[in-house]
Amino acid sequence: MRIAVDAMGGDHAPTAELDGAVAAAREGAEIVVVGDEARLREELKHREVARLPISVHHASQVVAMGEHPSQAFKRKPDSSMRVCFDLVKRKQAAALVSAGNSGAMLACGLFVLGRIGGVDRPGIVTSFPVQGGQCVLLDMGANVDLKPPNLAQFAVLGAVYAKTLHAKPRPRVGLLSNGAEAHKGTELTREAHKLLSRPRAPLDFEYVGYVEGRDIFSGRIDVVVTDGFTGNVLLKTAEGVAEALARMLRDAISESTLSKAGGLLLRRSFREMKRKLDWAEYGGAPLLGVKGVAMICHGASPARAIKHAILSARTFMSAGLLGGLEEAIGRQRPIWEAVA
Amino acid sequence: MRIAVDAMGGDHAPTAELDGAVAAAREGAEIVVVGDEARLREELKHREVARLPISVHHASQVVAMGEHPSQAFKRKPDSSMRVCFDLVKRKQAAALVSAGNSGAMLACGLFVLGRIGGVDRPGIVTSFPVQGGQCVLLDMGANVDLKPPNLAQFAVLGAVYAKTLHAKPRPRVGLLSNGAEAHKGTELTREAHKLLSRPRAPLDFEYVGYVEGRDIFSGRIDVVVTDGFTGNVLLKTAEGVAEALARMLRDAISESTLSKAGGLLLRRSFREMKRKLDWAEYGGAPLLGVKGVAMICHGASPARAIKHAILSARTFMSAGLLGGLEEAIGRQRPIWEAVA
Repeated sequence: MRIAVDAMGGDHAPTAELDGAVAAAREGAEIVVVGDEARLREELKHREVARLPISVHHASQVVAMGEHPSQAFKRKPDSSMRVCFDLVKRKQAAALVSAGNSGAMLACGLFVLGRIGGVDRPGIVTSFPVQGGQCVLLDMGANVDLKPPNLAQFAVLGAVYAKTLHAKPRPRVGLLSNGAEAHKGTELTREAHKLLSRPRAPLDFEYVGYVEGRDIFSGRIDVVVTDGFTGNVLLKTAEGVAEALARMLRDAISESTLSKAGGLLLRRSFREMKRKLDWAEYGGAPLLGVKGVAMICHGASPARAIKHAILSARTFMSAGLLGGLEEAIGRQRPIWEAVA
Repeated sequence: MRIAVDAMGGDHAPTAELDGAVAAAREGAEIVVVGDEARLREELKHREVARLPISVHHASQVVAMGEHPSQAFKRKPDSSMRVCFDLVKRKQAAALVSAGNSGAMLACGLFVLGRIGGVDRPGIVTSFPVQGGQCVLLDMGANVDLKPPNLAQFAVLGAVYAKTLHAKPRPRVGLLSNGAEAHKGTELTREAHKLLSRPRAPLDFEYVGYVEGRDIFSGRIDVVVTDGFTGNVLLKTAEGVAEALARMLRDAISESTLSKAGGLLLRRSFREMKRKLDWAEYGGAPLLGVKGVAMICHGASPARAIKHAILSARTFMSAGLLGGLEEAIGRQRPIWEAVA
């Protein structure tokens, strides 16, 4: 179960990638780091890796963050990112992790690994810590202009994820909208709502209909489905609000001697709270719907996010996520195929 | 400058509406409450209103929350909401406030007041308290399926709002997207971006291009423009995150005797922070683009939100918001008219 790590992709490459890989290897993950071999070997000399299961695989090119995804894919066949996908395709690695250009990762996923039969568009999945558990969200940014069958496919993919990773035997799946009533939503959501409300195959999950932005954090919904534009806005808004509140809390604490003393007493609780909210801890969002396990990390990922993504990839493989997705899509594809 | 208040519209009608109206009247606002006259007069008997500038105007019907907007508009010509719009149309009131069915309010705005020449769709505006000021957002839910010219119109409307209400001589206006690069976004945002990047008339504001969900809270942007579906999801997500964090903070404080003591010491700072975040305090979002000042309140608005909306309506009138909108739209309409 070797995991390929793109060592050159992120904003802090290769430092964050190597530190993350080393930390994950210490917890027993077998890793191949991919990138400029001379540089990576030099960097690894400064780390205690003698007995760790880490190898190096050379790749001569690097995809930059601002590069146009499909052009990067065509022009850089030996990029560290693309080579990671090739390793998975050739079964020389079981999964891959990259903090590089996410559009280019989507292109690699589509053209190197290919899609699971029945899936038209893969989606990026993330999960939020919410009241009493986790809420799965997709798509977080892979696809902006979608058709109703794509959202129905995301519902199936997200439900398998919640079932496999969060031990929900029959996940509650909602469609993100601007209100609960059926006349709300866009043309896209109204058509997807019809597909899921009167499904042409038995559903593996409970479809709860339209849900709103605040329902995500309530703990009453296990999976929320939306297009990648809205999902991305939602994710970044949530981050922005959390940052703004943390700033306000800091200001409130530093306001007076009395509140400083209060803050000091509360320090341990605050640290614990911060950890729960720190999405860097939960680094790595899988690209669901391609034939392989590919973890997309935020470009600014620190080492602990890379480590977390590697360990998550290992969990996904042990849990048999990929097989579960293929099976569920195969069984439920009549839901959207009558329409597509 | 009399303000019409729909006393029957909200979830807590008429209690919240009357209490809010009385509180605003104590601060000098002249008010006409609209609804079932016998009931309202009876209710007002229990409040100290003898010397306050509050009158009652009868309306025999009420629009329910779940009613289909355009049907409610057609079938209930004497609803408390519609009568408020009629009063403004006939210049018997200068503005109106309602916590009723927001879709029906949009219908009343379009069919009773009519649109400002050059505006195809009115938008609901809200503003968030952010680092060092306020950030204006529209549309928060009036329109879901839009065309690029609508977003360009929202940019002009939002800029006038920021200029007039937040004293920004040249507001920085951004278009909400899933990334800063020009190839990001949807077909809708890419076309709107073109209109605003190479405008066919001088802009009253600084167009900063694509912005992301987290930029809203940074204080670097004065106005964020988006469609009503995305805007509504964003607003409710922000509320959901704030609620979830407040809950976590409460739990952290109650965790141990030590943290309880810390919480006690911090109490005043927390209260202050909570006030800043409490969107009920900032109740009332104007429907911009119609020929009149119409404030839409959340259905669950408590009295202080109603009061705040009434006082905001008064501020909008004193500041000459409506005239400013008409003038700015008239001057900048070449931006989108070449395309529409």
